Amino acid sequence: MVKGILDHEVGDQVEKFLLVKSSTKGTASNGKPFLTLILQDQSGDIEAKLWDASEEDEINYSAEKIVKVLGDIQNYRGRNQLKLRQIRPAAPTDAVKLSDFLETAPVSKDEMTSKITQYIFEMKNPNIQRITRHLLKKYQQAFLEYPAATKNHHEFVSGLAYHVVSMLDLSKAIAGLYPSLYKDLLYAGVILHDLGKVMELSGPISTTYTVEGNLLGHITIMVNEIGKAADELGISGEEVMVLQHLVLSHHGKAEWGSPKPPLIKEAEILHYIDNLDAKMNMLDRALERVKPGEFSDRVFALDQRSFYKPSFHK
Amino acid sequence: MVKGILDHEVGDQVEKFLLVKSSTKGTASNGKPFLTLILQDQSGDIEAKLWDASEEDEINYSAEKIVKVLGDIQNYRGRNQLKLRQIRPAAPTDAVKLSDFLETAPVSKDEMTSKITQYIFEMKNPNIQRITRHLLKKYQQAFLEYPAATKNHHEFVSGLAYHVVSMLDLSKAIAGLYPSLYKDLLYAGVILHDLGKVMELSGPISTTYTVEGNLLGHITIMVNEIGKAADELGISGEEVMVLQHLVLSHHGKAEWGSPKPPLIKEAEILHYIDNLDAKMNMLDRALERVKPGEFSDRVFALDQRSFYKPSFHK
Amino acid sequence: MVKGILDHEVGDQVEKFLLVKSSTKGTASNGKPFLTLILQDQSGDIEAKLWDASEEDEINYSAEKIVKVLGDIQNYRGRNQLKLRQIRPAAPTDAVKLSDFLETAPVSKDEMTSKITQYIFEMKNPNIQRITRHLLKKYQQAFLEYPAATKNHHEFVSGLAYHVVSMLDLSKAIAGLYPSLYKDLLYAGVILHDLGKVMELSGPISTTYTVEGNLLGHITIMVNEIGKAADELGISGEEVMVLQHLVLSHHGKAEWGSPKPPLIKEAEILHYIDNLDAKMNMLDRALERVKPGEFSDRVFALDQRSFYKPSFHK
Amino acid sequence: MVKGILDHEVGDQVEKFLLVKSSTKGTASNGKPFLTLILQDQSGDIEAKLWDASEEDEINYSAEKIVKVLGDIQNYRGRNQLKLRQIRPAAPTDAVKLSDFLETAPVSKDEMTSKITQYIFEMKNPNIQRITRHLLKKYQQAFLEYPAATKNHHEFVSGLAYHVVSMLDLSKAIAGLYPSLYKDLLYAGVILHDLGKVMELSGPISTTYTVEGNLLGHITIMVNEIGKAADELGISGEEVMVLQHLVLSHHGKAEWGSPKPPLIKEAEILHYIDNLDAKMNMLDRALERVKPGEFSDRVFALDQRSFYKPSFHK
Amino acid sequence: MVKGILDHEVGDQVEKFLLVKSSTKGTASNGKPFLTLILQDQSGDIEAKLWDASEEDEINYSAEKIVKVLGDIQNYRGRNQLKLRQIRPAAPTDAVKLSDFLETAPVSKDEMTSKITQYIFEMKNPNIQRITRHLLKKYQQAFLEYPAATKNHHEFVSGLAYHVVSMLDLSKAIAGLYPSLYKDLLYAGVILHDLGKVMELSGPISTTYTVEGNLLGHITIMVNEIGKAADELGISGEEVMVLQHLVLSHHGKAEWGSPKPPLIKEAEILHYIDNLDAKMNMLDRALERVKPGEFSDRVFALDQRSFYKPSFHK
Amino acid sequence: MVKGILDHEVGDQVEKFLLVKSSTKGTASNGKPFLTLILQDQSGDIEAKLWDASEEDEINYSAEKIVKVLGDIQNYRGRNQLKLRQIRPAAPTDAVKLSDFLETAPVSKDEMTSKITQYIFEMKNPNIQRITRHLLKKYQQAFLEYPAATKNHHEFVSGLAYHVVSMLDLSKAIAGLYPSLYKDLLYAGVILHDLGKVMELSGPISTTYTVEGNLLGHITIMVNEIGKAADELGISGEEVMVLQHLVLSHHGKAEWGSPKPPLIKEAEILHYIDNLDAKMNMLDRALERVKPGEFSDRVFALDQRSFYKPSFHK
Repeated sequence: MVKGILDHEVGDQVEKFLLVKSSTKGTASNGKPFLTLILQDQSGDIEAKLWDASEEDEINYSAEKIVKVLGDIQNYRGRNQLKLRQIRPAAPTDAVKLSDFLETAPVSKDEMTSKITQYIFEMKNPNIQRITRHLLKKYQQAFLEYPAATKNHHEFVSGLAYHVVSMLDLSKAIAGLYPSLYKDLLYAGVILHDLGKVMELSGPISTTYTVEGNLLGHITIMVNEIGKAADELGISGEEVMVLQHLVLSHHGKAEWGSPKPPLIKEAEILHYIDNLDAKMNMLDRALERVKPGEFSDRVFALDQRSFYKPSFHK
Repeated sequence: MVKGILDHEVGDQVEKFLLVKSSTKGTASNGKPFLTLILQDQSGDIEAKLWDASEEDEINYSAEKIVKVLGDIQNYRGRNQLKLRQIRPAAPTDAVKLSDFLETAPVSKDEMTSKITQYIFEMKNPNIQRITRHLLKKYQQAFLEYPAATKNHHEFVSGLAYHVVSMLDLSKAIAGLYPSLYKDLLYAGVILHDLGKVMELSGPISTTYTVEGNLLGHITIMVNEIGKAADELGISGEEVMVLQHLVLSHHGKAEWGSPKPPLIKEAEILHYIDNLDAKMNMLDRALERVKPGEFSDRVFALDQRSFYKPSFHK
Repeated sequence: MVKGILDHEVGDQVEKFLLVKSSTKGTASNGKPFLTLILQDQSGDIEAKLWDASEEDEINYSAEKIVKVLGDIQNYRGRNQLKLRQIRPAAPTDAVKLSDFLETAPVSKDEMTSKITQYIFEMKNPNIQRITRHLLKKYQQAFLEYPAATKNHHEFVSGLAYHVVSMLDLSKAIAGLYPSLYKDLLYAGVILHDLGKVMELSGPISTTYTVEGNLLGHITIMVNEIGKAADELGISGEEVMVLQHLVLSHHGKAEWGSPKPPLIKEAEILHYIDNLDAKMNMLDRALERVKPGEFSDRVFALDQRSFYKPSFHK
Repeated sequence: MVKGILDHEVGDQVEKFLLVKSSTKGTASNGKPFLTLILQDQSGDIEAKLWDASEEDEINYSAEKIVKVLGDIQNYRGRNQLKLRQIRPAAPTDAVKLSDFLETAPVSKDEMTSKITQYIFEMKNPNIQRITRHLLKKYQQAFLEYPAATKNHHEFVSGLAYHVVSMLDLSKAIAGLYPSLYKDLLYAGVILHDLGKVMELSGPISTTYTVEGNLLGHITIMVNEIGKAADELGISGEEVMVLQHLVLSHHGKAEWGSPKPPLIKEAEILHYIDNLDAKMNMLDRALERVKPGEFSDRVFALDQRSFYKPSFHK
Repeated sequence: MVKGILDHEVGDQVEKFLLVKSSTKGTASNGKPFLTLILQDQSGDIEAKLWDASEEDEINYSAEKIVKVLGDIQNYRGRNQLKLRQIRPAAPTDAVKLSDFLETAPVSKDEMTSKITQYIFEMKNPNIQRITRHLLKKYQQAFLEYPAATKNHHEFVSGLAYHVVSMLDLSKAIAGLYPSLYKDLLYAGVILHDLGKVMELSGPISTTYTVEGNLLGHITIMVNEIGKAADELGISGEEVMVLQHLVLSHHGKAEWGSPKPPLIKEAEILHYIDNLDAKMNMLDRALERVKPGEFSDRVFALDQRSFYKPSFHK
Repeated sequence: MVKGILDHEVGDQVEKFLLVKSSTKGTASNGKPFLTLILQDQSGDIEAKLWDASEEDEINYSAEKIVKVLGDIQNYRGRNQLKLRQIRPAAPTDAVKLSDFLETAPVSKDEMTSKITQYIFEMKNPNIQRITRHLLKKYQQAFLEYPAATKNHHEFVSGLAYHVVSMLDLSKAIAGLYPSLYKDLLYAGVILHDLGKVMELSGPISTTYTVEGNLLGHITIMVNEIGKAADELGISGEEVMVLQHLVLSHHGKAEWGSPKPPLIKEAEILHYIDNLDAKMNMLDRALERVKPGEFSDRVFALDQRSFYKPSFHK
């Protein structure tokens, strides 16, 4: 496998294509403009400065452009930086495409789709099954491409669907051990809980919050959608309200964004499964480049903790 | 005006009709059953014990029955209690009716209706006006009868509408002083903010929470209703989302039940006006029987504070 | 199956053997002594008053005695109470024994022992395996009899072992889905995490805290024990410190009793698995007598929440 | 009206007089000194760098000096900056004066004075009236010039008096709707509540905290002043203590600086009116340059929220 | 020494004079009035019921009356109670006086006065010395009789002066070890810090809060008094403000009632010394009747902790 | 005494030996490497930039090297900086040694040793005495050299022992005033409370946390050590558990790192004495360079407070 930009060490010279994640103009102490570029490939991203930047540079090296660079990995204030020797925009003949540079889920969309379809197929309660299938179908394309969040966990292409698939497998394993759980509710809750993110967030790349995302949030958006789906499908049983409650309460506490705490067993367990999968994802990413006997970087969403990999854990 | 049950002092003998607010059966230390009755009129409620209660008594003196009593006001553990000498169920010939015993708003339903109608009439934005009018009409009957809460403030018949009318007057006064406020939004926010209570609560008497009230809450219920109203009226402008945001955020903070804090000026002011009117209502009720130079009882929803009426405030 | 004391309804007359859980002397308003008895069988416990109690009664009906009663189920202040008609101490000829009245885990000690033994057998790291086996063996008898807590969850005979077995099964299922987890650590963490309770608590019946339990707590006690075990077994690898860290951090946060938060992946997951199994246990117990469409009693250790059983969940 | 420095866009060339708000010396990477100047007019302030600064420059371009600049508006790290081409100190012949560059209340001192005088005139309680008049007169000059705070709200010349006048108008409107309020107390509380700021703060320009401000704070300072005023005027009624309580409690909670929470109705309402006027001021300033359909900058004192201006709010 | 009422055990018969601390009327289940009396001597207090109480009894056995009782110590719901056989009001010929029944400091007023006088005499800064002496003299009589609080610590006659004397001795010892401390400030801070309690509280017996105590609190009262004292003595140095700051900040944090935290070294240390002496007093009282190897009752003001007396601590 | 690097003012030229505390490489805007050096002597540390740094420079001027510098004190962004003119590594002939540049306790190791020995000698309880002596002896060398913390208080060579000695003196003074305190426990608690720091921290210079320090912490480490010591000495009395409790609880609250709060009187007082001595140390250091009438820098560990030195405190 080709080395990613994060796999190099200080002192390495690199020559490769990279995607401009962001580009910010500044003025140097000599009064001339420069660009601070964040360049990424599937391994992660690195900062680079382009000094004496022309107006043309500003256009060529703006966000979402692909560039070819030659440069050296340096250490600047404790973090790696790419010192540029050469940079040029990618040409059509370079035959590189956006998706080559984006981190994406380790499972294909088709595989994920078929797995989720199977879980819906296993549901026995027709009201729950129909609402879930309806909403998934309505937003399926975005659902398969969006990240699960702008940062912290599953913040990559198809991260949302990947998170859901992992949670479904967890749900099945847990429901196997605690048979009092109502599987249909748990599966439907998992599939719908974050689906509102396809309206809360702007899309899979350079993800930001939409106005609706800021003013209402993905929880409220999806609670409304469940109500609409029930109306359209002519479903009026208590299942509608209960599904709304599962989505409404899945953040667990008011101060975490759920105006009602979980008040149904499966809602409480959904909150746990969501948390557990998100934490496993964050822990694996934090520790993947850490050597046995060392500590990871601090992980913001895990209370700024720095995790240790035991020296006997080869 | 006739003296209410709370207007009597220890030692008074009273003879009057009262409404049974609740009735609980217990067993005395002699092994015989007794009833603990909470009896009310428009001035408030008082506890009474009915010793050696028969099964017939249990039926005759259950909640929402009206009774005629003769008894003495006593002090028991620092609170007034009614020591019963005689009690009998009200007869049809007594010509007393339920509403005589319920505390109710000091303004008539008609007056409130016409005032609110006038505020809606003054709105200039047709989308806001149509949604507000539609929802008010849909739930008008309950809106005019429900209390604003089960306890703490405006917990009386028509309390919800009375709270809304007071807030509308406050909104008008404040918008007169700060002309940058968008009046239509403020008025609509006031009218809709607590309207979901007609589904969250069980009704104007012996008010409890419905299952929907417990699992979703009045905020989420009304946000959904605004979405439905817009669909039915064929309205799709940003006004829909903004009205939903005003309702969603009117508790001010996540830990107080709003998953999004106010992010629009009128939403912030709506939260303030709601609070101010609720506090004035609680303060007035806490202080109405307090003499100058004395402290009120502790007010639960005002951080358990006990308020002082200055001795120069005659 | 024979009806337990909690399976009766108000109005039923019952005649059965019960265990005295506690007995408290009081003075009635007529000046005579009486006993407040809490009587239990495997279904739960109920209060009963024994009026005009003699000194002999005090002795005969003290904690851990078995009695034969005849009485009526009554409602007193919203809770069921047993009104005694007759009571007598159990005689040897009654052929009843203590364990008939104690709630106990639904799996036998032998089954649990063999399951845990199998998990230890699967460990590949000899240091972890030897320490775990050594400590389990040292405290095996108490481990198989103690509850996991004095209240809240798994508060029954053999509750501690039952909790551990459930967590081991959960660990296996989760490690199957997230292969980066180091199974040996997870299994050892599960087995040792609460083992200190056999010194923190007084025993399986009428459980209270020991002085050592109050002053040091089960976490510190077990961290010390791991150090001693390593000394005795001549083990000095990093595994000792890491196992101590897993036990030390398993409450997750300083304010919950862990002076260090989890700083190793398996420690974080151990905390989650512990929580998840405890919550499932509490939820199942809270909901087991609740009918579809109703709310449970408030559950103290689940933030005083009252849980709803959906009406479609037959 | 002449364009202020904040009314220009990136790329504009500007030539105008500005006031030096602050000047800080630094050393560039070439080892030479430079000045970081914050330059302001009534529209707000902007940063500029003066490279290769001489010792004379340091003196000429220090805080509170007026300068004439020629330069270009640039963007540096997301914020506007003024790139200097020319700079010179203002000369007497330039006929510019300090007050031309300071933001000030939109109402004249005379107007404010006459309005407040009228409110005092309306008071009926002579003790309250005399104390209020006495203290206002004692500190009148500073009261009319000081800001209400060093930042967050009303942080401009005469901001304190302007805040008081707005609050008086609000008080009148609210007291009109809730007639149980004691107007004299409310008006006096408004006028006195922040008057201690004339001793807590250093003055209307480059405002900092005095030693007394740091060690005692404006609340304690004014409570003491009320006591002294009463002594000097020979007033001994309960009004003295009640006015002290209003000032003492106007921050609402201990953690916000009030050792006693409001325990009198008018004290509670004073706290609300203070908050409401401060929030309106912050909201208006945050939104005044925001276009419909956009979000404001984050507002520090409003919990870092960023406010949205609806697109239909032209 | 004569046995106090708390020194008896269940089963003892007692005959002695006691002071009525409080008397509350109730109605028994037979409908007749009874009195709940709290009776005290210097060892503490005990509850007693007087059944079938006449109106005369109500008057004879009201708060602050002295009575002669004959009765038996009983256990009621885990607490000792006095079962009355006979009770009569004390007669003049009984030659008992109020102060015989009140707990009081273990050091005489004269001793305390001479000790404090000595500390004031040692002060070298005349401004600090004069203000301290002036205020102590002004309130000396009450200072020597008041308790330091209504509950928690030093809640006995002369408790305030006793607390101050202990703190002065502590100050001297600590200043001896840390010579950078300014002794005059520390001594003055100790003497003045709680002196406002003589106005905040009602008096040494049946102590409650005054209106001024509720609305302003002892901290604000004393800060005002220091200002007045300085005016009267014609002192204007920074010592005035610094002494006010010491009193103002001695609770340590805003949420504990100090609007400013300690910002001077001696203010910080004063807060510590105050805390340390209060804690020692509470600990000694909690443990004085506890046997080695046992736990004390829970102490409310020490976070509800129950303290252990080691078994080797004879 | 020779002036330390912190005793100079802006504009001074200095020539002196300094120790490199840390050295970080960066890249200047001209693309060339430079070193940011933190240089220290016993008075404190200062930053210096070494521009155009060669690879040799990087080696010569790395952490723990001693250098000779010639340069000027400048102000950069409000803090002093050393502008280098010349720099060279110290040569053997310069006759300077590491300990000349390290801040160290003001009392010699011998003096501290003999003082602590005396306190141990005074103990009367042989179990407490033997455990304390054993552990002190085991770690004596490190104990006499380590700091008490990496920052905040006593963060200098021998800081740990110095802190312990001050606390012992405080203990003696306090126990003199409150004779109910058990001196042996208090002295042993003081000596052992932070002894685990010799394993938690890396050493007296460039102090960091060890892996054991991160995963277990000094409290748990020392609780284990007390258990081991008792085993080795064959001591089994309650003293072992009580000493463990004193160490375990000395941070006072769970959120501050003590899984059990102090539950023994001497444990509570130990927590206080620890705090008091740490605060005095921080206050003295914060104020030692502050002139009367000025405020200190903000002190991080004292809630970011800035302390005032009264102008009359010469």
